[in-house]
Amino acid sequence: MVKVGIVGASGYTGAELIRILANHPRVELAYLTANKYAGQEVASLYPHLAVSTNQSFIAYDEKKAKDADIIFVALPHGTSMKIIPDLWGFGGKIIDLSGDFRLKDPELYRKWYGIPHTAPSLLGKAVYGLPELYRDQIKKADFITNPGCYPTSALLAVAPLLKAGLVADDPLIINSCSGLSGAGRGLSLTTHFSECNESVEAYSVGVHKHTPEMEQEMSVFRKKDVVITFVPHLVPVSRGILTTAYCTLSGNWETGKLVGLYEDFYRTSAFIKVLNEDSYPKTKHVLGSNYCYLTIRMDVRTGKAIIVAVIDNLVKGASGQAVQNMNIMCGLAEEEGLRNIGLAP
Amino acid sequence: MVKVGIVGASGYTGAELIRILANHPRVELAYLTANKYAGQEVASLYPHLAVSTNQSFIAYDEKKAKDADIIFVALPHGTSMKIIPDLWGFGGKIIDLSGDFRLKDPELYRKWYGIPHTAPSLLGKAVYGLPELYRDQIKKADFITNPGCYPTSALLAVAPLLKAGLVADDPLIINSCSGLSGAGRGLSLTTHFSECNESVEAYSVGVHKHTPEMEQEMSVFRKKDVVITFVPHLVPVSRGILTTAYCTLSGNWETGKLVGLYEDFYRTSAFIKVLNEDSYPKTKHVLGSNYCYLTIRMDVRTGKAIIVAVIDNLVKGASGQAVQNMNIMCGLAEEEGLRNIGLAP
Amino acid sequence: MVKVGIVGASGYTGAELIRILANHPRVELAYLTANKYAGQEVASLYPHLAVSTNQSFIAYDEKKAKDADIIFVALPHGTSMKIIPDLWGFGGKIIDLSGDFRLKDPELYRKWYGIPHTAPSLLGKAVYGLPELYRDQIKKADFITNPGCYPTSALLAVAPLLKAGLVADDPLIINSCSGLSGAGRGLSLTTHFSECNESVEAYSVGVHKHTPEMEQEMSVFRKKDVVITFVPHLVPVSRGILTTAYCTLSGNWETGKLVGLYEDFYRTSAFIKVLNEDSYPKTKHVLGSNYCYLTIRMDVRTGKAIIVAVIDNLVKGASGQAVQNMNIMCGLAEEEGLRNIGLAP
Amino acid sequence: MVKVGIVGASGYTGAELIRILANHPRVELAYLTANKYAGQEVASLYPHLAVSTNQSFIAYDEKKAKDADIIFVALPHGTSMKIIPDLWGFGGKIIDLSGDFRLKDPELYRKWYGIPHTAPSLLGKAVYGLPELYRDQIKKADFITNPGCYPTSALLAVAPLLKAGLVADDPLIINSCSGLSGAGRGLSLTTHFSECNESVEAYSVGVHKHTPEMEQEMSVFRKKDVVITFVPHLVPVSRGILTTAYCTLSGNWETGKLVGLYEDFYRTSAFIKVLNEDSYPKTKHVLGSNYCYLTIRMDVRTGKAIIVAVIDNLVKGASGQAVQNMNIMCGLAEEEGLRNIGLAP
Repeated sequence: MVKVGIVGASGYTGAELIRILANHPRVELAYLTANKYAGQEVASLYPHLAVSTNQSFIAYDEKKAKDADIIFVALPHGTSMKIIPDLWGFGGKIIDLSGDFRLKDPELYRKWYGIPHTAPSLLGKAVYGLPELYRDQIKKADFITNPGCYPTSALLAVAPLLKAGLVADDPLIINSCSGLSGAGRGLSLTTHFSECNESVEAYSVGVHKHTPEMEQEMSVFRKKDVVITFVPHLVPVSRGILTTAYCTLSGNWETGKLVGLYEDFYRTSAFIKVLNEDSYPKTKHVLGSNYCYLTIRMDVRTGKAIIVAVIDNLVKGASGQAVQNMNIMCGLAEEEGLRNIGLAP
Repeated sequence: MVKVGIVGASGYTGAELIRILANHPRVELAYLTANKYAGQEVASLYPHLAVSTNQSFIAYDEKKAKDADIIFVALPHGTSMKIIPDLWGFGGKIIDLSGDFRLKDPELYRKWYGIPHTAPSLLGKAVYGLPELYRDQIKKADFITNPGCYPTSALLAVAPLLKAGLVADDPLIINSCSGLSGAGRGLSLTTHFSECNESVEAYSVGVHKHTPEMEQEMSVFRKKDVVITFVPHLVPVSRGILTTAYCTLSGNWETGKLVGLYEDFYRTSAFIKVLNEDSYPKTKHVLGSNYCYLTIRMDVRTGKAIIVAVIDNLVKGASGQAVQNMNIMCGLAEEEGLRNIGLAP
Repeated sequence: MVKVGIVGASGYTGAELIRILANHPRVELAYLTANKYAGQEVASLYPHLAVSTNQSFIAYDEKKAKDADIIFVALPHGTSMKIIPDLWGFGGKIIDLSGDFRLKDPELYRKWYGIPHTAPSLLGKAVYGLPELYRDQIKKADFITNPGCYPTSALLAVAPLLKAGLVADDPLIINSCSGLSGAGRGLSLTTHFSECNESVEAYSVGVHKHTPEMEQEMSVFRKKDVVITFVPHLVPVSRGILTTAYCTLSGNWETGKLVGLYEDFYRTSAFIKVLNEDSYPKTKHVLGSNYCYLTIRMDVRTGKAIIVAVIDNLVKGASGQAVQNMNIMCGLAEEEGLRNIGLAP
Repeated sequence: MVKVGIVGASGYTGAELIRILANHPRVELAYLTANKYAGQEVASLYPHLAVSTNQSFIAYDEKKAKDADIIFVALPHGTSMKIIPDLWGFGGKIIDLSGDFRLKDPELYRKWYGIPHTAPSLLGKAVYGLPELYRDQIKKADFITNPGCYPTSALLAVAPLLKAGLVADDPLIINSCSGLSGAGRGLSLTTHFSECNESVEAYSVGVHKHTPEMEQEMSVFRKKDVVITFVPHLVPVSRGILTTAYCTLSGNWETGKLVGLYEDFYRTSAFIKVLNEDSYPKTKHVLGSNYCYLTIRMDVRTGKAIIVAVIDNLVKGASGQAVQNMNIMCGLAEEEGLRNIGLAP
């Protein structure tokens, strides 16, 4: 059994880790920290978890935290980078779900996150935990920075094109729609039901924190700098991200061949489902699951390839992917505990 | 491995059986019939199932249908009673998810379903498959009539009171809210998004087919005739039923004692979670799961006990409960394949 | 032109008053107070109002407040009763949208609102502003207590039966479903999108503040004490209340005759639409409008009459009704500014 | 009074015309045709309209149809072009809400609509009824082709840039999210509640009928051919379109100056609200109203201008715009009957 600790377990990604791990046959939940809710039962915050656990949250304690094989850090950005240096070298593995260790350049971090990075020496140490692209590195890693929800969908959408050297010019357009759980459990007018229900809106146009993360990883895959214009939107669903990516391709392509390219690229990735010319993905296909459904179309008239990819932002976009990384790092079957199918209809 | 067949697999309860059974470790899906879609891949109707099966629907064939240990019949009412007599005595077990064999009295069936029953001789043969109330009979049964979604929630809500002889007079008021998937996959203006979204409505006030089913089973538990007034409502969610039951109690009761009574009653029922005075159930607690969350309050001013119970209409209200029945009938662990927790947030 | 002031204009009922009055041909909006947002433009909080007003909120000032023909007080309960005594006798008319002056008995107020009433001497002075029941008193009134949203729907649902002396015994069951805007603009986990979306829940079972208000007014109409069991529920819509009322009737009745009774009762009430046996109301029929749609069914088997009534909680359940009261008090056409039809689909 | 007839009044755009015109002070509704529902009351299909009309639908009759000052044709594409030639020259004005007369080139029509045009001689006769761009032509027109919902939002989004000659290269990316009422009242699995609720999906990627309409009108404004890549999406709201447009600009621009450019462009257009750098539009701002809210941002890093525009697809995107055109054509105030503000929250 893998002994797992969750630091910062009271937010949505923490709760989702608990939900997923409850049915993982190889995991023992050692502790759940949440300073604000220390002493309270998990079920008092999350009644849906009442049937799987009677544990309570505890206050964070460094010594106790180190008594685990794997530590999931599900703290907000800015807090995570204050905790992880102390955990460094504790003998087990760390998977950080915050944005603190995704960017390799501390200046970029300061620019986009608006605060200086307090652990820049660790920035290069983390492996970017997107298994479909970096499975081999993850296998050997002790420290994973779990990708953002938007970047997960966007990178899975365009990686095959970048890898094949087909993207002709910049910028790529990344247009995403996200459910409200992506904004977390913290209260705000933006996520107040009567404000966002029966409505769609754009936000952080061109200035969202996930922009440099996408550019960094796309550049790795293209082996050349990539620039993107990224616009996120909020749509009235609890879970789900749909990303529509627009790329100018070099050469002459048709939809069928591009679908084939994608099928080849993801042939060994159990969580990726490439749809063919006959259908489009919708977020409901992957609701509550770790799957990513995607497809591609060639707009021959304009020379643009359009890729549409969907994930559940809390699963493949956060906690499910973290568990997938854990499985790979611990030598377990990659799909262990993650075989749930999308909850449709 | 239990060899399972599904007759009428293309509707929502059929698709939900496929979804649940995909991760059931002791089950082999032998065939899926759907005359209308014979030859088509399951995934073409239900892309979310593409990751678990590459089976196609087949046309119904009596001989082939009998080659199974368990047959789930997920046909509409009226059709089920035409098929089951032919399957009768085939050597395995039958679980019928339609309403055709729930009422024991053919006259009652004719009155509420509006058509004559064509297999009245089988009406008394089916065990009513609500495991929390009839577990022992289900263990020995070969033929299960799976409860309706509304009756499941209502019976679990009031059974402890009826069993304890506390219900003072009639009628009980059963007020239910259901998500739209309860209306099935068939198209209608009622389930057209723009008509039902951002709206609530009542329907079939006092005349819903599930009324006599509830009365019949409540009467068994009370050992005395029960009359109810039942009003179903549609609320804009895909899944979920919330039932609010109002009963006049004999004797003096307080909420705390009633909660205790319910906890005792359901102590051995893993899928029932009784909430105490501090919280109320919501359908999201059980979304996608086989659990029923419920609680009770005593309105001392008026002498009414109010019970609130929630289920996922497609899981505990249909396909999950059918699998639970299968597990019990086949000597498997009752929770096998059904341990998913509610998908919240 | 009627000179109108709104005290407490930054909440949802305040914003809704502004929205409605913007197109009222006989009204001039003199001022909008909101201490928390003094100096801020209305449009900065409510961008949808940007096209109708460039006014800013001001801090409350008693002297300035009195410079109006009509003052709408849209403050929370507990605050309203601190302001209104100072406005008393200012020469114009007051319409209070809070719950502070609805109950005539200060002890009842203390019991259900949990705080002592600080202006008990004014409790008997307010006319209960439900025009369909008290139009004549409203015409002559200077001080209106605007009904609660749930009571508006419930009273309109049962008043014809009570008036006709048909209600045989207690308690009446009042089961209501409300959209989330009823909870106001204040942030809470209950109204956090990801918590309440795709979910239904009951709350305040038997203990909601609106219970004694309904009992008080029903008793007036029945000329005999009425006791009710009231259970409110939250459903994932922004606006709308659907109330289902269950009453035992004396005498033998059929649906058709009861529909006729309701049509007669509401014949002169332009905002009430009685639906006949062929259809049921849904909240979408009245979305954004001041109408109440309702119908009645007799459940002959059980002796229960069931009434289903729908309103928009922010319009007929709050601000629209307040404007309707203003129209009546000021001798304007009752429908002035309120002729918008429900926004369907 | 303007005598108005609606041909094809039973669909959503027809019902919306009835809803809007019910409160238009200068309009008399002469007739409502709907062959399928001839003889049925409007209120039987649309109960929300029961409070404004007791008219019934009638069968289409050419002679009777011509007895009007203005005829709104709200038929599906393909049907409209069969009716309008017979109405031609009847002495009044025609506003066609279908797509049949939007494209000037019959070959383009055949290519994108998949059927040959049967009235090509009328193709050049219609004025494109987007008042903010073509007000002067509309004033003098007898025949208006009312713009599509997506084109309305996209054209209002990019017209100021095209007019100012700032768009540097092709293709423009037009990414739109639409509510489900855009798909009309006809039943389909796509609009079945349980399939589209709690989900987002893309459709008709690069092949949507509205693509050539946008290109045609953008080219007029740019005075040079424009090519676009257009991807529509469905989001789970009843009403609302949000369009995000991406354009490469020539010259150096900042957000503030672009906002100023838009404010200037739309200064005389009462239905357009340009938001500044501090806020973003959401569809709820314009729900049920004829307004378009929009804003622009310059992504200096990538040279892309991003415009976000929202409308209610049934109002500004269809019936409201048609009434706006009628007002202009008939010399009425442009806002008559259209002053409703967005229904928020």
